[in-house]
Order: sequence, then C-alpha cells, then structure tokens
Amino acid sequence: MKARVYVTLKPTVLDPQGQTIRSALHGLGHKSITEVRQGKYFDIALAPGAAREQTIQEIETIAHEVLSNPVIEEYRVEIID
Amino acid sequence: MKARVYVTLKPTVLDPQGQTIRSALHGLGHKSITEVRQGKYFDIALAPGAAREQTIQEIETIAHEVLSNPVIEEYRVEIID
Repeated sequence: MKARVYVTLKPTVLDPQGQTIRSALHGLGHKSITEVRQGKYFDIALAPGAAREQTIQEIETIAHEVLSNPVIEEYRVEIID
Repeated sequence: MKARVYVTLKPTVLDPQGQTIRSALHGLGHKSITEVRQGKYFDIALAPGAAREQTIQEIETIAHEVLSNPVIEEYRVEIID
C-alpha cells in the first residue's frame, strides 16, 4: 500500500521561499507569473497485509504529528493503492 | 490559470532525507513504514488572458530550467484550471 502526504503552508501564512522564486522568475523574463507557493510531499510505502482502515488512520496520525506543523501548515493525505 | 509542478528525485537516486524520516518514524513505533521519499511541489498562478498552449509551454520551460535539476530530479506539470 502506498500513500502520499501533501504538506503546504496555510494560505494565510507568508511564503518567502515562493516569493523569492517568483522574483527570480520575473528576473528571468517570466512576467506572467503572479504567485508561487511551495509545498512538499512524502511518498510513503507501507508493508503489505495491514488492515486498510488502520493504515489510513496511522498515516493521518503521522501526517498530523510528524510531517506537518499544524500551527502554520496544513496537510492532505492521498491513498494511492 | 493555475499550474502545479511536482519535482522529485529520480527513483535511482538515493534520498537521504526520506531515509531519515523513515528511521524517525520507526523510532516512534511506526514499524509498518517500508519507504519514504520526499518531493516538493510549486503552485504557480499566472496572469489571466495568456494563450493556454503558450502558457503550458512556458511552465514546462520553467519546470525544466529553473525548478528542477534534470541530472538528479524529474518533474511533472499539472494544469489545475
């Protein structure tokens, strides 16, 4: 079973890294870019045989407690197969 | 118009960050995790009114030349709307 966890800054939180990329792109002539926000994702492979419901619950826990900072970030869990 | 560019290490390239996360999760008792690989993504907003085909081409160029390192990374472009 595979899962993917997307972690991104909350929309209300400033993203200086994204702003820097946007400025760099403008400098390179890509003037049509109005905003860039960066996020990260984690592809997680799990040992086969675990109960599906329990695994989803475990991934949710990991995403909330380890992979993201709930104060400034939000996450989304996607089960791939 | 919005686009998202996913950048990840090629499958043949070692991902020490992912391995560290995997070890940390094992240490926290999540023994069913067999592999973790980390990637990043960029949400890019574009000024409205640009020709769709041309914009897709521009995003492809940006992904290839700026956002990813083609030697060790691969990218995928997704047009959101």
